[in-house]
Amino acid sequence: MTIKPLLDKVVLKLDDAEETTASGIVLSTAAQEKPQFANVVAVGPGGVVDGNEVKMTIKVGDKVIASKYAGTDVKVDGEDYTIVRQSDILAIVE
Amino acid sequence: MTIKPLLDKVVLKLDDAEETTASGIVLSTAAQEKPQFANVVAVGPGGVVDGNEVKMTIKVGDKVIASKYAGTDVKVDGEDYTIVRQSDILAIVE
Amino acid sequence: MTIKPLLDKVVLKLDDAEETTASGIVLSTAAQEKPQFANVVAVGPGGVVDGNEVKMTIKVGDKVIASKYAGTDVKVDGEDYTIVRQSDILAIVE
Amino acid sequence: MTIKPLLDKVVLKLDDAEETTASGIVLSTAAQEKPQFANVVAVGPGGVVDGNEVKMTIKVGDKVIASKYAGTDVKVDGEDYTIVRQSDILAIVE
Amino acid sequence: MTIKPLLDKVVLKLDDAEETTASGIVLSTAAQEKPQFANVVAVGPGGVVDGNEVKMTIKVGDKVIASKYAGTDVKVDGEDYTIVRQSDILAIVE
Amino acid sequence: MTIKPLLDKVVLKLDDAEETTASGIVLSTAAQEKPQFANVVAVGPGGVVDGNEVKMTIKVGDKVIASKYAGTDVKVDGEDYTIVRQSDILAIVE
Amino acid sequence: MTIKPLLDKVVLKLDDAEETTASGIVLSTAAQEKPQFANVVAVGPGGVVDGNEVKMTIKVGDKVIASKYAGTDVKVDGEDYTIVRQSDILAIVE
Repeated sequence: MTIKPLLDKVVLKLDDAEETTASGIVLSTAAQEKPQFANVVAVGPGGVVDGNEVKMTIKVGDKVIASKYAGTDVKVDGEDYTIVRQSDILAIVE
Repeated sequence: MTIKPLLDKVVLKLDDAEETTASGIVLSTAAQEKPQFANVVAVGPGGVVDGNEVKMTIKVGDKVIASKYAGTDVKVDGEDYTIVRQSDILAIVE
Repeated sequence: MTIKPLLDKVVLKLDDAEETTASGIVLSTAAQEKPQFANVVAVGPGGVVDGNEVKMTIKVGDKVIASKYAGTDVKVDGEDYTIVRQSDILAIVE
Repeated sequence: MTIKPLLDKVVLKLDDAEETTASGIVLSTAAQEKPQFANVVAVGPGGVVDGNEVKMTIKVGDKVIASKYAGTDVKVDGEDYTIVRQSDILAIVE
Repeated sequence: MTIKPLLDKVVLKLDDAEETTASGIVLSTAAQEKPQFANVVAVGPGGVVDGNEVKMTIKVGDKVIASKYAGTDVKVDGEDYTIVRQSDILAIVE
Repeated sequence: MTIKPLLDKVVLKLDDAEETTASGIVLSTAAQEKPQFANVVAVGPGGVVDGNEVKMTIKVGDKVIASKYAGTDVKVDGEDYTIVRQSDILAIVE
Repeated sequence: MTIKPLLDKVVLKLDDAEETTASGIVLSTAAQEKPQFANVVAVGPGGVVDGNEVKMTIKVGDKVIASKYAGTDVKVDGEDYTIVRQSDILAIVE
């Protein structure tokens, strides 16, 4: 079963393991906005969103830092995913 | 009796049965935004919404993940439906 | 005495009787947004609203599902009506 | 002394007497938005409001239903008036 | 010392004396929006505000009714003034 | 050390001394919006802000009345400054 | 491991040491908006944000004053960073 995001939506798989890596990446958990270190598993085709043409620059396989604030959590085939808009992604980590 | 949604509205039939499927799809129920796994039963014709031309990409029969946040629940002929805007639909599941 | 709505306003007559029809249409009453099953009794001429040209697609006599959230209740000649914007109407029921 | 409203402003004289007419028009008083049955006593010239050209369709002498929510009450020469924007007027009653 | 308002700003001198005139103009003091009967003492040159060209129609010497809600009170050379945007002025009184 | 404001930002030096001048300029301190009598010490180059071209009309050396509501206070080399957007400046005093 | 910010995002490294410098730069900590004195460590490529073309004027190595209000804190390889939009940067300090 596959998730095909619409327009500017991006499906993320949170990288929970990293949170316990001592010298690795640890994300702060502010009260107002919970950032996420995640892997991109599916990317929408882009298109006109609120009257503006959105071009997708994120690619499947990118490791990203995203703001979870506007995201929606879903569980498909027993796996947890988060669906965000591309504009909720702050940066790519390489 | 049939529901004909206007403009960018989409009529959804929630897929309640799936919620109890152990290895299937389970949707989280966050406090702020309740996502829905649903079947599309009717789609509006699209048109100009808030000054922007909206083209409908969702089709009747699609299985979708939607955010219920802005949706409206109605009961027609004893059946429960939810009416959302197309932009409230996050992804198609295949 | 007749009500002539302006611009994109639509005058609705709520269909209260239907609410008690067992196998018929029953509308849920969510806390945040109260949907309405109603008959259209008057339709504005459309025109420029907030800088956008609005064309009226709703016709007098349509049976509609509307969101009451932004509506205004008025009593004219002893009858209750609700005035909404066309964009507050979700679907036509046939 | 005369009130000359600017742009899309309209000066209304509330029709308080009607509220006690048994078989006539009685307006509900919802908590959030207080509708008004009123007579139009002065109309602004229209013009560009928030970047959009507004054409005035309301005329002096119209009997209207208005939402008081955004209105401002003034007393001029001992008489009470309410100044609203044309977009706060829902319908003309004839 | 003179105040030269920028863009669409207007400097008002409140007409406090009128408030005690029995048969004259008395302004209500609602909780949400305090209207003002005032004299225009300075007018900005107009120009582009939030991307929209604003033309000034108010002139020095006009007697106006303004909403104080968005205004700022200043005291210059011992005199109290209020600076508002032209769009906060509801009507001219003649 | 110098502060170079970006786009439509303006650096102000508050004129605290004036507040004690008996017959001079005294600024009221409303709860919602604290106005400021200040000297302009640096002006951004202007440019496109939120999609609108902003031209700077304020010059270094201007004595201005500004709304502190959206400003940010900074201390550089032991001196207090406030950085505001040009649109937060209400008037020039000469 | 490197952070590559998207669109108009900028990665900042807060300059905590300066806060204890007596005659140097000290930033106030208002309740509503916490300003930051920081070094720019990475800058996005710019592009279309909310339908508006954004050109980046900030460069890596710039010492800036930023508003932390809309920023997101991340820890990468044990170092703390803050990701802001370019429009959250108020001024460059030289």
